[in-house]
Amino acid sequence: ELFVLTYGALVAQLCKDYEKDEDVNTCLDRMGYGIGVRLIDDFLARSAVKKCRSYSETADMIAQVAFKMYLGVTPRVSCSSAAGNEFSLILDKNPLVDFVEELPAERASLCYCNLLCGVIRGALEMVHLAAEVTFLRDRLKGDAVTEIGITFLRKAED
Amino acid sequence: ELFVLTYGALVAQLCKDYEKDEDVNTCLDRMGYGIGVRLIDDFLARSAVKKCRSYSETADMIAQVAFKMYLGVTPRVSCSSAAGNEFSLILDKNPLVDFVEELPAERASLCYCNLLCGVIRGALEMVHLAAEVTFLRDRLKGDAVTEIGITFLRKAED
Repeated sequence: ELFVLTYGALVAQLCKDYEKDEDVNTCLDRMGYGIGVRLIDDFLARSAVKKCRSYSETADMIAQVAFKMYLGVTPRVSCSSAAGNEFSLILDKNPLVDFVEELPAERASLCYCNLLCGVIRGALEMVHLAAEVTFLRDRLKGDAVTEIGITFLRKAED
Repeated sequence: ELFVLTYGALVAQLCKDYEKDEDVNTCLDRMGYGIGVRLIDDFLARSAVKKCRSYSETADMIAQVAFKMYLGVTPRVSCSSAAGNEFSLILDKNPLVDFVEELPAERASLCYCNLLCGVIRGALEMVHLAAEVTFLRDRLKGDAVTEIGITFLRKAED
């Protein structure tokens, strides 16, 4: 709908501005970060969630409350490290790409939804959780599902 | 929320790309047009509205169904011409500017929400209604309300 199409216009504009996919990806991530930093207040106010006591709880919160609230979908969460600090959000359906059929050949390295990574990273930082957030798999690139990887940067024991 | 902040990032990017406010306004309008042309299918499918029989009915539909659906607000509609082809949508509250305090001094001519004009114009064109759509008043510019003017370009009798 309107948001999805507006997001598409934003990505298209950045593709006009930057020749390299990497630069578009970086720019989307940076924009997302700025959004996440501001969105966290809205999220905490509307969700009325309590403080999470573990990385696992935090990942579930992002998937079940935040994604549901802002994108209307609930990714599955899987923990992908023995250390308990790496998680994957797995989306069978990604509403942000509803109007995108496939990436053009000359944009094969574009992380179309990279804004989301930045949003998650920015929002987590505001609750004092440093994290790396990247796309691990992407249906737009022919993968079976879309998978966002979140790595919390301090050990779970800290 | 996420859409509003993403829209802000889009406007900020265009302000980086174009020095002149007029160019940003034109670009937002053009992007909006492209969005409206695609959004109309979603609107007709989700709203299941019947064909409008007058410009007045069309303006009401935009305000009461489309704005409600996509922006969560319902503007008041006023007819501003004896010929019956000019309408105003009057917004006491514009959710798209929730995070904008005021326009920076060097961006005094920016029509921040100009994308909406393009969206309306594009969507109307797809149902064979040529129209001019512009901001007549804008709270961001110190006006008491935000007012979008829609002028249907064929006489009502046609």
